[in-house]
Amino acid sequence: MDLERSPLALPFPAIPSIAGVTPRIARARYKDWDRCDLTYVEFAEGTTVAGVFTRNVCCSSEVEMGREQVRLGRARALVVNAGNANAFTGYRGREAVEQIMAQVAQHLDCKPSDVFVSSTGVIGVPLPKDKARAGVATVLEADPCSWEDAAATIGTTDTFPKGAVATAVVGGRAVTLAGIIKGSGMIAPDMATMLGYIFTDAAVDAAFLQQLLTASAGDTFNCITVDSDTSTSDTVLAFATGKAGNAPLAAFDDPGADAFAAALHDVCRQLAQLVVRDGEGAQKFIEVRISGAESDESARRIGLAVANSPLVKTAIAGEDANWGRVVMAVGKAGEPADRDKLSIGFGGTWAARDGQPLADYDEAPVAAHLKGREIQVEVDLGLGDGHAVVWTCDLTHGYIAINADYRS
Amino acid sequence: MDLERSPLALPFPAIPSIAGVTPRIARARYKDWDRCDLTYVEFAEGTTVAGVFTRNVCCSSEVEMGREQVRLGRARALVVNAGNANAFTGYRGREAVEQIMAQVAQHLDCKPSDVFVSSTGVIGVPLPKDKARAGVATVLEADPCSWEDAAATIGTTDTFPKGAVATAVVGGRAVTLAGIIKGSGMIAPDMATMLGYIFTDAAVDAAFLQQLLTASAGDTFNCITVDSDTSTSDTVLAFATGKAGNAPLAAFDDPGADAFAAALHDVCRQLAQLVVRDGEGAQKFIEVRISGAESDESARRIGLAVANSPLVKTAIAGEDANWGRVVMAVGKAGEPADRDKLSIGFGGTWAARDGQPLADYDEAPVAAHLKGREIQVEVDLGLGDGHAVVWTCDLTHGYIAINADYRS
Repeated sequence: MDLERSPLALPFPAIPSIAGVTPRIARARYKDWDRCDLTYVEFAEGTTVAGVFTRNVCCSSEVEMGREQVRLGRARALVVNAGNANAFTGYRGREAVEQIMAQVAQHLDCKPSDVFVSSTGVIGVPLPKDKARAGVATVLEADPCSWEDAAATIGTTDTFPKGAVATAVVGGRAVTLAGIIKGSGMIAPDMATMLGYIFTDAAVDAAFLQQLLTASAGDTFNCITVDSDTSTSDTVLAFATGKAGNAPLAAFDDPGADAFAAALHDVCRQLAQLVVRDGEGAQKFIEVRISGAESDESARRIGLAVANSPLVKTAIAGEDANWGRVVMAVGKAGEPADRDKLSIGFGGTWAARDGQPLADYDEAPVAAHLKGREIQVEVDLGLGDGHAVVWTCDLTHGYIAINADYRS
Repeated sequence: MDLERSPLALPFPAIPSIAGVTPRIARARYKDWDRCDLTYVEFAEGTTVAGVFTRNVCCSSEVEMGREQVRLGRARALVVNAGNANAFTGYRGREAVEQIMAQVAQHLDCKPSDVFVSSTGVIGVPLPKDKARAGVATVLEADPCSWEDAAATIGTTDTFPKGAVATAVVGGRAVTLAGIIKGSGMIAPDMATMLGYIFTDAAVDAAFLQQLLTASAGDTFNCITVDSDTSTSDTVLAFATGKAGNAPLAAFDDPGADAFAAALHDVCRQLAQLVVRDGEGAQKFIEVRISGAESDESARRIGLAVANSPLVKTAIAGEDANWGRVVMAVGKAGEPADRDKLSIGFGGTWAARDGQPLADYDEAPVAAHLKGREIQVEVDLGLGDGHAVVWTCDLTHGYIAINADYRS
């Protein structure tokens, strides 16, 4: 099926080259298509790495091995296969990953554990080793490519390439962070898994990079949802080459650490929101703002209950200010809530306060807000200081069409 | 909007009258419609009652008060309002319920706490007290009606009336259990809340009736899902008049207690499945069978994760044997699972065993099975003896149309 570009798409940003990072692409033809589907990114010696991975217990070999590799903290290359997720493929799937790692390691004269592999696409079919071997051989000889080409090559059902960029000054040196990501049916196991990669020329100790990435993921990648389903392959990796020449960051006390952390968080937030903007069938980008919860974590759970509710998402698709469905979603979250302290609003207008519809509720500004592309839902629990922001998209006929009408 | 009768509907069963139970219906016109929307059921003196209620913390006054009333264990009447859920309406909603209880109690010369009230329909609008008062006055004078008429009158977006019947022999006496239920967008807060009522002429101690109802709900009402959303008003009440003349059941040791418990469970299962058969937009009835889990409760959670997965439900709507999506749903459930011991099947044919696609997997029988109306998904965890069965329906364009295309 041909997918139209999402109406919520953003243009690909101007991302400069990152010292010590060289992306290349090639055609491995993992599926019967004529497009680039193999991405290779080479890193300078001394590059550090951190990663966050799916919590799905039925994860792929790529995820299992990646979890082990990031503990070592060093990276020389990244290989991303698009069109085959290589998940639920047993020992044959693992052999394919080990083959790719060995082939690249031989070329770079590094350890296989320095080579990170991701795969995304259909599951239950072992990655074909012959295609992988030929594809890797080709890509190792290919010319360097643009970030936009790399972003397009890691995509599957994505309708637009997704990238983000941020800069920071660290110890007097300007550093750049570039990110690319793929994912749309968040977090479908076939053809729509979230894979994100962040590259920086900053020098960052691997353990500190891991600490920053984990913290940033908490209110970015872990605060988006398209359909509540959790992929078997979700991976976000951050690579730091150190070529900017700053004194390596190892703790928050180091000069520039705060600025770098803020820039990393910014890239993570941009990338996370881009995945929602390409949500399958999405017509509206929805920001759910929770305040007054007992804790931030409670607010996040309530926000995800609202953002995952099919009834809330279809109401917004229908431009219906159905705040009762938001009440329902808050109530089912399993978190502390008091019906008689609960307030619900849309786009800055309260529809209900303290457990009752507002006597002078004027639906006109809410109706106008809901006709737009960018929707805000506000929930105040009236209990404490906990707050969270969660992003999702509406649930439309397009989602059903993509996932039911066409055989995968 | 006019809703077509669900293709999964079953005919209304022949339910006899139950000694000590008299249903009546009337037009309160809670909405701008010309249909009966107020159901009144009168019980003989000495009737016992038990109930199970939504866990949604934003529940309605009816639920709050009903929870208190069942502790007293006695019932003389039930009033069900359709068209207005009276939820999230603060003190004004509560006053409307208290008015109905007082009006019926005066008529029957009983305590207000003997009168149970439920409401279903749009939320956030206080039940109009004038319409309720006139409607109750009318229904108290109305002729008795059939069970099918009562089942139709408690319905809102339901596309067919839902009833169930079972019999048992208790201490040498034949007893009958009749049930009616409404609900389709399981468990939407507006126009689609699950309300179920079970009536029997058996004599059953209230505490024992509660014990049996709670146990039966665990693997019936608590094992169905349409869209994962949980109503603010869900209620199931069981009333036992004692008119069959059996020695009252008070414990499992009593003669006939097992038979009564089995009949009650049977009625609960029938009613629960009928709600799924009227799931919004449903084209297929799906039974998810989980075995080999670490515990029954773990199996139930995994079953619900599969049954709530939009990707699994859309795949079945598309008649696509996409077992990878089932793997994903199992993995995200947060329950013990081992990818390499997991087996997935459809309609009795395994597609994957022990973490890998079957080498000789023949998709033909699976494809034929998925073309039918009644679908079975089998999951074996390979870990222990825990098992569960969960029922749901597919996710189709009809669900989106009902919930997004029409303003409520």
